[in-house]
Amino acid sequence: MFGYHGKFLQVDLGTGEIKVLELKADDLKKFIGGSSLAAMLMYDRIKPGQSPLSPDTPLVFATGPFTGTRVPMVSRLAICGISPLTGIWGESTTGGTFPFKLKASGFDGIFITGKADRPVYLYLNNGKAEIRDASSLWGIDTYEVQKKLKDELQDAGVSVACIGPAGEKMVPYACVMNDKGRAAGRCGLGALMGSKKLKAVVAAGNLKTELANKEKMDELTKQARNTVISHYMNPIYRELGTLVYMELGMALGDVPAKYFTKSVFPAEKIGGKALKETYNATKDACYGCPMMCARVVKNFNGIDEVHGPEYETAAAFGPLCMNYDLNSIVMANHLCNAYGLDTMSAGVSIAYAMHLYENGILTKDRAGMEIEWGNGDLIVRLVEMIVNRQGIGELLGQGVRRMAEELKADPEEAAHVKGLELPMHDARAFQGQALCYATGPRGACHLKGSHYRFDLGSMAVPELGIAPSDRLKSEGKAEVSAIVQNYNEVFDSLLLCKFATLSATQISEMLSNITGWEYTPTDLNTAGERSINIKRAISNKLGVSRKDDRMPRICIQALTEGSTEGKSPDMGLMLKEYYDYRKWDWDTGKPSRQKLVELSLEQAAIDLWPSS
Amino acid sequence: MFGYHGKFLQVDLGTGEIKVLELKADDLKKFIGGSSLAAMLMYDRIKPGQSPLSPDTPLVFATGPFTGTRVPMVSRLAICGISPLTGIWGESTTGGTFPFKLKASGFDGIFITGKADRPVYLYLNNGKAEIRDASSLWGIDTYEVQKKLKDELQDAGVSVACIGPAGEKMVPYACVMNDKGRAAGRCGLGALMGSKKLKAVVAAGNLKTELANKEKMDELTKQARNTVISHYMNPIYRELGTLVYMELGMALGDVPAKYFTKSVFPAEKIGGKALKETYNATKDACYGCPMMCARVVKNFNGIDEVHGPEYETAAAFGPLCMNYDLNSIVMANHLCNAYGLDTMSAGVSIAYAMHLYENGILTKDRAGMEIEWGNGDLIVRLVEMIVNRQGIGELLGQGVRRMAEELKADPEEAAHVKGLELPMHDARAFQGQALCYATGPRGACHLKGSHYRFDLGSMAVPELGIAPSDRLKSEGKAEVSAIVQNYNEVFDSLLLCKFATLSATQISEMLSNITGWEYTPTDLNTAGERSINIKRAISNKLGVSRKDDRMPRICIQALTEGSTEGKSPDMGLMLKEYYDYRKWDWDTGKPSRQKLVELSLEQAAIDLWPSS
Repeated sequence: MFGYHGKFLQVDLGTGEIKVLELKADDLKKFIGGSSLAAMLMYDRIKPGQSPLSPDTPLVFATGPFTGTRVPMVSRLAICGISPLTGIWGESTTGGTFPFKLKASGFDGIFITGKADRPVYLYLNNGKAEIRDASSLWGIDTYEVQKKLKDELQDAGVSVACIGPAGEKMVPYACVMNDKGRAAGRCGLGALMGSKKLKAVVAAGNLKTELANKEKMDELTKQARNTVISHYMNPIYRELGTLVYMELGMALGDVPAKYFTKSVFPAEKIGGKALKETYNATKDACYGCPMMCARVVKNFNGIDEVHGPEYETAAAFGPLCMNYDLNSIVMANHLCNAYGLDTMSAGVSIAYAMHLYENGILTKDRAGMEIEWGNGDLIVRLVEMIVNRQGIGELLGQGVRRMAEELKADPEEAAHVKGLELPMHDARAFQGQALCYATGPRGACHLKGSHYRFDLGSMAVPELGIAPSDRLKSEGKAEVSAIVQNYNEVFDSLLLCKFATLSATQISEMLSNITGWEYTPTDLNTAGERSINIKRAISNKLGVSRKDDRMPRICIQALTEGSTEGKSPDMGLMLKEYYDYRKWDWDTGKPSRQKLVELSLEQAAIDLWPSS
Repeated sequence: MFGYHGKFLQVDLGTGEIKVLELKADDLKKFIGGSSLAAMLMYDRIKPGQSPLSPDTPLVFATGPFTGTRVPMVSRLAICGISPLTGIWGESTTGGTFPFKLKASGFDGIFITGKADRPVYLYLNNGKAEIRDASSLWGIDTYEVQKKLKDELQDAGVSVACIGPAGEKMVPYACVMNDKGRAAGRCGLGALMGSKKLKAVVAAGNLKTELANKEKMDELTKQARNTVISHYMNPIYRELGTLVYMELGMALGDVPAKYFTKSVFPAEKIGGKALKETYNATKDACYGCPMMCARVVKNFNGIDEVHGPEYETAAAFGPLCMNYDLNSIVMANHLCNAYGLDTMSAGVSIAYAMHLYENGILTKDRAGMEIEWGNGDLIVRLVEMIVNRQGIGELLGQGVRRMAEELKADPEEAAHVKGLELPMHDARAFQGQALCYATGPRGACHLKGSHYRFDLGSMAVPELGIAPSDRLKSEGKAEVSAIVQNYNEVFDSLLLCKFATLSATQISEMLSNITGWEYTPTDLNTAGERSINIKRAISNKLGVSRKDDRMPRICIQALTEGSTEGKSPDMGLMLKEYYDYRKWDWDTGKPSRQKLVELSLEQAAIDLWPSS
């Protein structure tokens, strides 16, 4: 007996065909759910040279076995595909109410291919699904789409995931928005959605999630709730949101400033306390979350309600651009939310433009304007131009890799890994972070590779035998980085918020009692490793090799200030150790045949090593 | 071969006799050094009914095998005796330069008994020792004593540990001061020193510390230095001192306010940032420490230079007294330093007076004044009155246990364990902290029982198989509490600063290569356990039983505000588990005979269990 069915909706937007995809128990057991299951489902469809915006590229929405249960912090969704920004495996997760509602609509996920001939939205309700016309929604922003759909459907209880103008215009880092300010931000999956003319997915319903062992789950859920409430970070995030990290991170040299060339900046001007006190910001939460890390600002410059900004956003539009005008950060964030644009790639691209402008590589003539550091109004204006693909905004919207190519700038100064812009945790402050960025399945990713949280002690996995490491050293980082990545893969498979401080033991017990299959902490690690490797195999098919596992020099060269002064991660050392630990092939950057077979990824073993 | 000699100076201040005490290698190996070795040395001298202020009560200064080496953060000293405040085992550690200088003077420690017939000081210099007249120093403050002795000896390189007027007047919680603002604060060992008419110990010399394996130690020392510098807390403490915890702790409900009845208070008014910005406070360090957590304020209200305050001090004179006048906190701290008074016991006693006054138990008539909450000037005045044993200051100087007795107040509202006032980490914020306080060898102690640091992830001992726990739960705390206490015992035996984030593996390797004896992380834990048990045996001789392992109700009853709202530790549950884990006897509160024998504490086994 098991309670997790893995019932996916399969939709071909080209033909209009809708059917239910029943998954094999063995696949569910091995891939669990979420982004891992999405990778398994997509694997066969991805051919070398596959274009992200080709109609046959899949777009997958996937919940997991935890979604819909009463376990805290599980209303999360993975959205996966081939990234229009990076051209390789792409994924992003989001919270809010939509993930819970999608499950309650009767589906564990949606597998979408094809391209509609006119704007459409998908309407899911208690096991039924329809493709509906969205012509009247095309061109309007994400807040308005959500409102309009709720009004039209005369149901305030529905939840909507949608794209804004940025996704429609296929800006390569357009995102998917839901429940007002929640975002599946990274990898440009909003552009992928836009390429299919899919404006929104609407979920409605009240179907219950079955559990293999309800009684035991009641007990484990109660314990889990106590655990997350008891953790010391809980009241801190509740009080000040993720922006609380601004001041702490700055002291550690972990907040990059002036496009990765500085690490000293008046953090308190734009930190969690400043947001709270300046705007009387209040807290908000994803469905069923006792932590409430999200922020809401009412009556902001004449706008009824804006959301965020989160730490990553404020760091990217703030210190990275040498901008401490909090007002402009909140506004740029709101525009990104409304237009559906990834704040992180936007902030890094704008900061890069400022850096290139200062160095004379981006000229006033080419830019059509002065692009000086720290100009908050300019940042807001550039966000608008990126969304509208207007003037220099067209180039900035392509991300830093293509900006460097187009402007013939030093590629070592383009702050990305595999095309994905660097997050706002400086790789010099936690050297393991550099390794995680270089090897992350979607490129530079702080969520899969949260080595910094592990070294800070705010994430711990004693069951897997790893301990916090010296943050300013490069030796011995491979095992921790790999296990941290594996473990985060599991979170994105279940799905579970990264801030849920549940132990591997608690998670494996709950997964066992939800599904009816036995899992141990070691099984979780293996499932995570399997997920990393199938995603790697997809990206290998799309051209990723070892030379792509790298960090741009500007993000790792030693600074002359701050708490990381004079320190630089040793990429060669870490990567060698990592490849050894992962059993990846040093020549090609592919998982070894042996490793793929060991993880029961037989098809990938055949595809990647045809002659063996 | 071994490099750690354990050469103690034995001084009888009554007879003036001075000799060298050579210790047995087996004792050194088992007790390591510091407070553990001091307990072993004192053990036979302590009889039931022993009065702390009796001339034959020993006063021990002890360094350890790490002192004098180039390992970072090791210039620390343990001062031990029977506490004039609590009447049981008493100890306190201090940093600065004095510990290093004591070792360089040729002695690992000093074992002092007797009482001089006039004020004296001890002068140690390159293996020689003298008792010298200190009549001209009696009555002057600790800053002045240090300056005068350096001037008289015409040697700015000497280091001085001394008492101030509070110690001379035997205020029960008088402390020992050295190197300007460094304090061996707790347990009233300054009063014990005062009872012996010992005004100061002066250390001079340049003798080197031998190492069993110098080459290996060079390598391990370099690694250790990298480890402590790389830890994420290093730049935070360097930048803002220990006061940086004020805001973080307040968010967690860990900073007690209004005499343990509140946990919400405007922390930022008196936090590390406020200190830095208000007074342009600069950093200072103990000898050889790369962290530099100490603070110095120049030109404070006409005083050239004042030190601190540390977090514990600012919390006690601040939120606990509902006082956010930072100026008064800095001033009260400075007076305590100059007069030689423990800031923690002083702050808790003053806050208790405010609480009793509000409740009509301490009347205006008895107090001779109004004692209202939050009056900074009053706090400064009360510190002066405590030191001078003047008016109500005489009673406040006795500590909260005797205040409750004298005023016939509810003993459950006297915030102490075994007579030692509670530290400034709220037992409701980290429930394991309550267990550590209840069972700590010197009473309520946040340094031996730093469960909060363990749960916060800023202290980790993966080698000993323990993991951070849910802070708001009481289940399963015994093992972590016991191992945290054991491990901190080792730090106080080596001696090593509690902020040194070295792993148990690093510590045991260094100890092995300093002494020439092999230690593993498990050996360290056993040595710590031995130390805990011999100290417990001493206190058992002095009357401690299980009923003393308790927390006053006011410090654990659930609050109606803040992040611990409604939560209260379950003392019965935790103590039972702790006794089981420690193999202590539930009826008597003594270590079981079996446990004492297992730890090779045969004499204690005979003394505590004579009929067995």
